[in-house]
Amino acid sequence: MSTPSVSYSITVRLELPPRPSAVSTLTTAVEDQGGLVTAVDVSASESDVLQIDLTIATGGEVDAERIVEVLRTVDGVVIRRVSDRVFLAHLGGKLTIESRVPIRHRDDLSLVYTPGVARVSKQVAEHPEDARRLTIKRNTVAVVSDGSAVLGLGNIGPYGALPVMEGKAALFKRFADIDAFPLCLDTQDTEEIIRVVKAVAPVFAGINLEDISAPRCYEIEARLREELDIPVFHDDQHGTGIVATAALTNALTVVGKRMADVRVVLSGAGAAGSAVLRMMLAAGVEHVTVVDVEGVIYEGRPGLHPSLDWIARSTNRRGLRGTLSDAIVGADVFIGVSAPDILTVEDIQRMAPDPIVFAMANPTPEIDPALAAQHAAVVASGRSDFANQCNNVLAFPGVFRGLLDAHSSRVTDEMLLAASRALAAVVTPEELNATYVIPSVFHPDVHEVVARAVREVAERLEREAGAPAVGADGPGAR
Amino acid sequence: MSTPSVSYSITVRLELPPRPSAVSTLTTAVEDQGGLVTAVDVSASESDVLQIDLTIATGGEVDAERIVEVLRTVDGVVIRRVSDRVFLAHLGGKLTIESRVPIRHRDDLSLVYTPGVARVSKQVAEHPEDARRLTIKRNTVAVVSDGSAVLGLGNIGPYGALPVMEGKAALFKRFADIDAFPLCLDTQDTEEIIRVVKAVAPVFAGINLEDISAPRCYEIEARLREELDIPVFHDDQHGTGIVATAALTNALTVVGKRMADVRVVLSGAGAAGSAVLRMMLAAGVEHVTVVDVEGVIYEGRPGLHPSLDWIARSTNRRGLRGTLSDAIVGADVFIGVSAPDILTVEDIQRMAPDPIVFAMANPTPEIDPALAAQHAAVVASGRSDFANQCNNVLAFPGVFRGLLDAHSSRVTDEMLLAASRALAAVVTPEELNATYVIPSVFHPDVHEVVARAVREVAERLEREAGAPAVGADGPGAR
Repeated sequence: MSTPSVSYSITVRLELPPRPSAVSTLTTAVEDQGGLVTAVDVSASESDVLQIDLTIATGGEVDAERIVEVLRTVDGVVIRRVSDRVFLAHLGGKLTIESRVPIRHRDDLSLVYTPGVARVSKQVAEHPEDARRLTIKRNTVAVVSDGSAVLGLGNIGPYGALPVMEGKAALFKRFADIDAFPLCLDTQDTEEIIRVVKAVAPVFAGINLEDISAPRCYEIEARLREELDIPVFHDDQHGTGIVATAALTNALTVVGKRMADVRVVLSGAGAAGSAVLRMMLAAGVEHVTVVDVEGVIYEGRPGLHPSLDWIARSTNRRGLRGTLSDAIVGADVFIGVSAPDILTVEDIQRMAPDPIVFAMANPTPEIDPALAAQHAAVVASGRSDFANQCNNVLAFPGVFRGLLDAHSSRVTDEMLLAASRALAAVVTPEELNATYVIPSVFHPDVHEVVARAVREVAERLEREAGAPAVGADGPGAR
Repeated sequence: MSTPSVSYSITVRLELPPRPSAVSTLTTAVEDQGGLVTAVDVSASESDVLQIDLTIATGGEVDAERIVEVLRTVDGVVIRRVSDRVFLAHLGGKLTIESRVPIRHRDDLSLVYTPGVARVSKQVAEHPEDARRLTIKRNTVAVVSDGSAVLGLGNIGPYGALPVMEGKAALFKRFADIDAFPLCLDTQDTEEIIRVVKAVAPVFAGINLEDISAPRCYEIEARLREELDIPVFHDDQHGTGIVATAALTNALTVVGKRMADVRVVLSGAGAAGSAVLRMMLAAGVEHVTVVDVEGVIYEGRPGLHPSLDWIARSTNRRGLRGTLSDAIVGADVFIGVSAPDILTVEDIQRMAPDPIVFAMANPTPEIDPALAAQHAAVVASGRSDFANQCNNVLAFPGVFRGLLDAHSSRVTDEMLLAASRALAAVVTPEELNATYVIPSVFHPDVHEVVARAVREVAERLEREAGAPAVGADGPGAR
């Protein structure tokens, strides 16, 4: 039996004869099987039969099936229907596109469609920069995936990716009031993806790349940044980098160490790992050793592709070779964005005093955070059921809000670092402790604070580049 | 001075000393210049000054400027600001993307995003047909344009096209509760457009092509229909065909003539013209002569490209050559989807008794409908300020509603003809007369009736093709 979770919650509609102990019999049966009853509704009642909807948090598919079978054996019970709350929440999709303008009668039609719209079209065609004022480009972001590296599911293609990208778009709206639209592409060819994103770019003020496998994601991001006049953000890289670095900043304060002094072991050299490294170096970390599936990365290791070669040249000053267990000896910080269960208690015990362990592999961390917490001073993970959840939702809504508000044409490392510092600073000195180095995504200030930090850098850069000031007058504001 | 219209309406904010005749002085000045005051708001008042917002329908930019200049000369008036209502309606764009699911706390997050969403992604990846049940694909249509033939504005590119496509998407929601997203492409290359639409198709249940110039639009439509498993509709062709044929059906009833008997002269052989022809032939019209800018189209005319060659072989049985004036003699019906002011009163006078004239060129018809109405039995146009407005908004929302509800993989001529017949039948025999051969887009039944007609044909075809039945059970509906 696993811990019951709302993310595997079922609603069982059943009928049974009305007797005083009816409901308690059911809830006891559920609890005996490790389920958690979260709601009981009597959805219909007749003289000889009660219809009850029982909502149950379970530990997973196997637990759910066992619970239903046990309910079926309760005297007089007939199971009518078993629904899965996650699937119910997804029925019909998670987004809707609404008109912001009323269309009540012919006058409205002629304002927002022909013939009135022709004047607006003419204006925008002649002054494309007005698209940010007179069209949805102002506030619209594309969430682009080819479905090649979705969550822990791997290469599941564009249809499988769509529920995740819809969820992402819903989070954009919820946390930063951004209109985001999911584009799940029926191609995994690098050049084709670049071409498609460039072709659809006029409608968008920013591109959020998502769940595209490495190393294609580097090439796609780099080329789009070069060839487009809107910011391109790869959440798996930059979002993870911002959040991990913010958490590290605060964790170091908790243990009283400094960025420039600590020795960090980073496990994982893919999209997330290389981005976390880049951001940590920008934040002032000087001593990093990176470990991938083949062991410690060092200059001259055979078969290093360009991205790993950059890592080799930027890290491991001591020229260490060996395994994770070799690298971890005496380290102050472990950061994992790699694989399940690769860090042991013994590894932690060989770290420097007050070790910091970020086990961020999803869905299964490098070490069980509860176990790690018995031996480390600060533990963070991607799990929502432990303290210090490092969740990209802390970063991407605010980052894009700032970029959009600044009408930014790009996203720079300086902006990402500003976002990371702002995120860390949401935790006040009074609040800071080993179990609270990073705020909740529902913290009321997070997204606004991140947005402001990004906007300030972006506006300065746009000014320095001599771009036209934001909010310039034009038709409709004469 | 042109007729004042809400599609060129301005709001003038001005200040003047408070005196009894203040407002009437202003409205008189406006009316003397041919403007129409539609609203007067005193937006602020002090002891020595009134601030007034005057909303004025004008005949166009020149009229608006003259009216403002005259207001400026009224004793004591200071003009503070002139705003254009059309631009005000477009500020910030016309669409918003909203979350259909609440995200209030961590439990909600784990239902609609990770970890819960992973199960839905897995399901959809393994059963892509479930995308129609568990993702936005169910109800989402792409409005695709390359901006090469936008309204009467011509090749204004993707930015200029965006306000029109947003308006279209807003109409999809207003009239058929469809989520439509505008994709304005930064390419006018036929192959590239085909590639891009194919790449983004997984998210959509239908493609609405819009304002793509001929002859590229034919190739794009044909190829996408062949290569995609969702319906592809080109509104400039099929929408126009449905509406014109519906109006013709009713107009013939008004004058007591039959499809098979009448002689039709069709002016225009582009995207709209060829689609109207195709639909009329399907509806039973047997005698058509098509005229383009080079005159009557006949078999063997030098330089006929494939689309015109098909027209030559399908029409003009008498082998007529010459100009529009030659073809019009004795014709029962004139249908124009071509160019401004090419039909004369003399032309109409040489038609058969009770002539029908559809002058549908936009924004300026083939003949002024008011003038035509003095000589023809039935007149229709694209203009909203005359009777019998033939507007594509009568067709596309209902057509896509029907296609989506049927989970249709294609759109066929039979469906379009069913839509046309259903649209015609919305006008009851009691209502039918020469000034009401086509209903208003705000008629409460139009879109539902069209949707039902399309759905019935689509469901029959899907059944015949052996496609899985709509609404099959699955996870979440066990």
